[in-house]
Order: sequence, then structure tokens, then C-alpha cells
Amino acid sequence: MINTIRAEVITIGDEILFGQITDTNTAWIGTELTNIGIRVVRKSSVGDQVDAILQVLHEAHQRADVIIITGGLGPTKDDITKKTLCTYFGVGVVRNEEALALVTSFFEKRGREMTDLNRAQADLPANAIYMQNDWGTAPGMWFEYEGRVYVSLPGVPFEMKHLMMNRILPKLTGHFKTPIIKHKMIRTIGIGESFLAERIEAWEDALPDHIKLAYLPSFGGVKLRLTATGEDNTLLDHELAEQVEKVMPLITKNVYGFDDDEIETVVGQLLKEKNLTLGIAESCTGGYVSAQITKVPGSSAYFWGSIVSYSNTVKVRQLGVKPETLELFGAVSEETIQQMAEGVRKTLGTNIGIATSGIAGPDGGTPDKPVGTIWIACSTEQRTVTRLLKLGKYRDQNIQLTSNYLLNMLREEVLNQ
Amino acid sequence: MINTIRAEVITIGDEILFGQITDTNTAWIGTELTNIGIRVVRKSSVGDQVDAILQVLHEAHQRADVIIITGGLGPTKDDITKKTLCTYFGVGVVRNEEALALVTSFFEKRGREMTDLNRAQADLPANAIYMQNDWGTAPGMWFEYEGRVYVSLPGVPFEMKHLMMNRILPKLTGHFKTPIIKHKMIRTIGIGESFLAERIEAWEDALPDHIKLAYLPSFGGVKLRLTATGEDNTLLDHELAEQVEKVMPLITKNVYGFDDDEIETVVGQLLKEKNLTLGIAESCTGGYVSAQITKVPGSSAYFWGSIVSYSNTVKVRQLGVKPETLELFGAVSEETIQQMAEGVRKTLGTNIGIATSGIAGPDGGTPDKPVGTIWIACSTEQRTVTRLLKLGKYRDQNIQLTSNYLLNMLREEVLNQ
Repeated sequence: MINTIRAEVITIGDEILFGQITDTNTAWIGTELTNIGIRVVRKSSVGDQVDAILQVLHEAHQRADVIIITGGLGPTKDDITKKTLCTYFGVGVVRNEEALALVTSFFEKRGREMTDLNRAQADLPANAIYMQNDWGTAPGMWFEYEGRVYVSLPGVPFEMKHLMMNRILPKLTGHFKTPIIKHKMIRTIGIGESFLAERIEAWEDALPDHIKLAYLPSFGGVKLRLTATGEDNTLLDHELAEQVEKVMPLITKNVYGFDDDEIETVVGQLLKEKNLTLGIAESCTGGYVSAQITKVPGSSAYFWGSIVSYSNTVKVRQLGVKPETLELFGAVSEETIQQMAEGVRKTLGTNIGIATSGIAGPDGGTPDKPVGTIWIACSTEQRTVTRLLKLGKYRDQNIQLTSNYLLNMLREEVLNQ
Repeated sequence: MINTIRAEVITIGDEILFGQITDTNTAWIGTELTNIGIRVVRKSSVGDQVDAILQVLHEAHQRADVIIITGGLGPTKDDITKKTLCTYFGVGVVRNEEALALVTSFFEKRGREMTDLNRAQADLPANAIYMQNDWGTAPGMWFEYEGRVYVSLPGVPFEMKHLMMNRILPKLTGHFKTPIIKHKMIRTIGIGESFLAERIEAWEDALPDHIKLAYLPSFGGVKLRLTATGEDNTLLDHELAEQVEKVMPLITKNVYGFDDDEIETVVGQLLKEKNLTLGIAESCTGGYVSAQITKVPGSSAYFWGSIVSYSNTVKVRQLGVKPETLELFGAVSEETIQQMAEGVRKTLGTNIGIATSGIAGPDGGTPDKPVGTIWIACSTEQRTVTRLLKLGKYRDQNIQLTSNYLLNMLREEVLNQ
């Protein structure tokens, strides 16, 4: 039996205490540590004050084997984590040449002047093991002190996450004997959480004790996360594969991918394989669908372009929507969405055209077309399919949901090609 | 002089530690307490274990005058906050008739059977002052113990917020003589944190002790937060205004707004005021700029549409970029970006056209045009300005940064209109 490794997560920064930013880092860190079998026993946030930081470090030392600290590593006066760690460990700072080289190249690449404040970012506590931050100038640091591991990371989420994934988590699993924890994610779309739960209930109830299921709902989709805990790597992989095989027949139509697959990546892969090109006509989503498609590196292989037609003039001139259609049925109608999808396909000369038109909100709703009334369409050489979405009253959500539903519609149509 | 009232916020629940939910309560509570002049000195999260809760309560007692506790008040077995508070205060439970009446009516209204578990929700620690929760069955509680105030609230956000707004905050302002704390946020863009710091160093060093400065960096911008503490509302406002007036001349060109202003909202407001219409031509940003512009409700008043020209064919056909320009200088060139910005303005018939073209990465870089080489342009009836950005190697960041730089360029051009 392996004894539990206990972790404490500390965030540093007045802005967190004063509520000027919502801390999403510690939830993410909590998930990742849990995934490698480390138990988070406490989360603490303190301000940018030396004594407050020292106090929380001393407390954490009593409770935890691993202490993860984020924030307060910026180049400016209010960032005091580093010098406070020096006080805590009773060491001085040493300029780290590796870190300096990185900061220097970071500025050279951007053709920018480097200041002493920037150089000072390469000064690390003498007992620090340098953890390279590929995404910024604030270095990550690993300390071993009185049998505990201390990790100091920048508070900028994408820098912190990159450091955790690529440097810290692997080093932690190497440093501690933690149980093996394996995950398998099944990504579904177009089915609600409760319906999904009902459909797979029997399978879920039959899961062995060491395999747990979690429902992770996100915009337009629900991720099923299987977590298996044990000590035999290959056995766990085998057991997870077995469970996936069992559940798939129940949900095939709604599964668009596994693990890290994103809908836009899956669709892009399909388009590439089938050698098809895509054009997009966006009204209410205002460019969001295109941005999602082009998030994927190499999307230029299948994505030719989009026409965002916020004004009806653009719908008519650039997409060839008939003025009388707009007059008779309005911009938010099956007739219009059909012409938009077909229009963009013809204008841009692509194999496939997809389109959105609706009332994203918060205003612009009418009794017969309330906010959240949104049409989507996908036009191929064979046919044009349309669908009416009845979404909620929140603009951001309506835009993101519409985009995901449309990409899933595209996925289904491409599968038929 | 009023001595500062110090608060600690404690959240209880394993799901927070394991990252299954992101805690938004404490950020909200932090803002509200700050607004009534109570200084949050610590935030802590612990799991659903008696000893962990007792420990954090004892620690908080050392540090804070007010301890706000959320979570663990549900009817189920794993909700142990109430009985742990009894242990902590050394009291027993007493059934509160007011609370019982509320729970009862809550169930009657819904025509649901009431269980002993539900009735037990009306059992409060003997020293509790009952704080009615109008939105649920878990009561709020106020305790005074050894000169501290303890508040226990349900973790459900809307129940917690309702209790805070209507019961707790008013009682706190009555109970304590609190100082007034005022914030002023200055939002800058297009200048790095360290450069900003150097430029305003003299001003920063000259700030009076009761006015603190914080740097809050985000994509392409840095927010400067001034926090003033005192006793005279109007005096503080005046002092903050004074400091803003002093620092502005040093950074005017980089300031796009204050407090909650977002760059896309500020630009939109300017376009509306000046009665100007906008068209966008996007290559490497793939629709992101348009999506950012249309995030703003009512953006249809000034935004007509975009052409996302990922393929050169679209650049030529829809934007009127000369084929020979693409051949001679390539898609990522000053010549092309100029024609894209002018092209979209003419094609869509808008007053202003903005454009992006570059190598977002991760691939597609060349020795003379490495990943991160991105051109942006803004074309008005008077002129077309262009700018070359040299960004990093990460696609998402390049796209977001480009969008923010372009919107700032647009802002500057609109100001000249």
C-alpha cells in the first residue's frame, strides 16, 4: 500500500483576495494533482505581504509533502514571492545563466529593449532548481526543503499550466511513489447529461470499484471521464479499453472523439482525409465559428475563408441572399440560412458551406423569435441541411453553443460524404 | 485613525480541493468586503473533515476579526459544518422555530414530503444568530465569539449572495467602524509591464502610503490598479483622480480605458459616437478579431461584416488584392496588408477597414519571416496605417495579441477621425 502524498496549493496576490480576478488556477492544479494520485488537503490565498506569505509557508510545511505556490513572480515592485522564498529558505539570490539566456532571447526575438527589471527575473533563490518557462520570462522553481517539495510558478494561467504539464507533474510523479492513475475521456456532443446518464446507467452501475466515472459537461457536449487507479500500468490500460468497448455501442452517434480531441480538430481531420474544402457564412456568431476552425494548426489545408455578414447588405452582396427572402422571412429564417450556406459555398468555391443566423441577445428578440432563436445550416454538393436551435438568453453561451452544434452538424455531413 | 478590519474567507468542500468545481464565491465575497472597507487577508479551502475545519477556524481566529465560512450546510451526511461549529464553539444544537417554519413552508409550497434530515436543517448551534435564507433551506448563521464575528453561509452561489447582500453586509457595516477603500483601474495596451513600470517609476515611488499600486498583466495589456484607504469618501475619490491626472501624461498613448472598460467595448463606443462603420479582413487571426468585436451587444450598429481570407484566392476575389502583389511580396507583407484593409473597406462599403495577415504558427515560418511575423493595418478615408508585429511562437497567443494590437490601432485611428 502506498501512503497518501498530501499537497497544499498557495496563491499569492492581493487581486485574488480583493476579488478582482477569479482564481481558476487552483481548481486546475487540484484536478491535475488528483489525477496523479496526490491529495490536495488545503488551498490558501494570501496577499503580496512578506509576513503573510511566510506565515502560510510555515503552516503548509506542517500539513503537506508538496507545496505549490503560484503568483508574485512578475518583474515589478509588488511581486515579492522570490525574495520572500529566500527569507523562508534562508538563502540569497543567484543569477541563473540559463534563465537569463531565455529572458534575453525572449526580448531579442521581439526586438525589444531589455531592462534591469527583466534581467532580475533570472535571479533565483540559491537553493532553487530552475524550471524553464517556455511561455514567459518568469521562471518556474523547484525546491526541496526539510523533506518537503516546494514549487513556485507564475500566476499567468497558460504559463503555469505549461510548466505544470511539461516540468512539474512529471517531476512529482518521479519524486514520489504515487499510485498509477489512468484516464480515458470519451467526448460526446448533441446529448444532454441526464439523457446520457440514463442511456449508460446499467454500464455505469457495473463499473468495478477502482474505475470511476465523471460527467464533465461543457458547451454543447458532455465528456465522460473514466479514472482507473491501481499499480499495473498495462492492466489499467487494458481495463479502460474494455470499458470503452462496452459503452460505445450505446452512444456511438454522439461520440466525436476521445481524450484531447476537440470538435474543431476532429472535423478538420475529416475534411483533410476526404479532401474537402470549407467556407463559412456567419451572422449571429460574428466570426466565432471561423476562429474555432482556425484555432487548429494547418487548418488552411481545408478552410478557405468566411464571410461574416452582420449587415443584411453583406448578406445580399457577398452571399447572394435574395432581398425578397430577407423581406418576407427575415434574416433569422430557414430560407435565409439555406441561401447563406449555399451562397458562401458558391462565392468562395468550396465543397462545403456552413452558416449561422440568429438572435444571440441580450436584445433583439421578438415574441415569435425570442433571444436564442438561431438557425444553422450545412450545404454540400448533394444537399443542404438546416436546423433550428432554441437556446438561452446569454450572448456568449449562445455563440459558443451554436458554434459547437454547427461543427457537429458539419461532422455528420462530412461523414456521409 | 480606524484600524483595519481583517477578514478571512473559508470555503468547505472536497469538490473545491479536487478541482471539480471552480470557486467563484470567494472572489465575489472578496469584492463585496473590500467595497465596505474590510480587508480580506486570507482565503482558505478545506475538505469535509472535522479536524481540517477545526484547524482552519483556529488559524483564522489568530488573524481575522471576521471569518466568513461557506459550504457544508446541506442536509446530507457529508455536510458537517454545523456540528463542527458546535464543537468549535463548545455548544450544542437548538432547534430554531423561525428556521423550522421557513423549511416547512418551503416544502409545503412545493408540495413535497419533509424528512427528518430536512427538519434537522433548522437545528442551529446554541450561540447562533439566525440569518434567514429566503432562497433555500440551509440557514445563514452569525456568531460572536472571543471578539470575532463568524458567519456561516450555504455554498450555493445565489443563496450565499442573497444572504450577504441582504443580511450579512448590512450587519457587518453596523457592527464594525470600517475604513473606506476605493479602487481606480487604468487599462493600458501596447506596452510591457516592465517598460510601463520604468516609465512611471518616479510617480509610483511618490505615491502616498495610503494609495497602493498593482500591475495586472493580460494579453497585450497591463492594468494599473490604484487602491486608496481612508475615512473620507470624497477625499479618496479626489486623491485617486489627482494621481490618475499625474500619471496620465506619461502613458496617455497606451491608456484605452478605466475600471471595467474592455478594448472592444471602448472601440465600439468610439465608432458609435463618431457614427463610423467597420469592416474587417482577417487572414492569420481567422475570425478572432470579428468574434471579439461582436462579443459586444449592439455591435451591429457599427460592425457590418468581415471577410476571412485564409486562401489567396479569397484575398484576390473577395478583397481585390492584386495577384502580382501576392507573387512579388507574399501574403505576409506590407503591400498585401495595405490592399486587404483598403479592399475590405471598399468591398463592404464601410468607413473603416482593418486587416491582419501573418504567420500564427506553429508551422509556416521561414528564415526571413519566422512564426510570429504578423502585419496589421487600418484603413480610413484619409489614410492607411500599417504595422509589423514580431510575436512569439504560440498560435493562440499570437492570434489574441494580434487582435488586441489591431483593436488598439483602430482605437487610435478612430480618435483621429
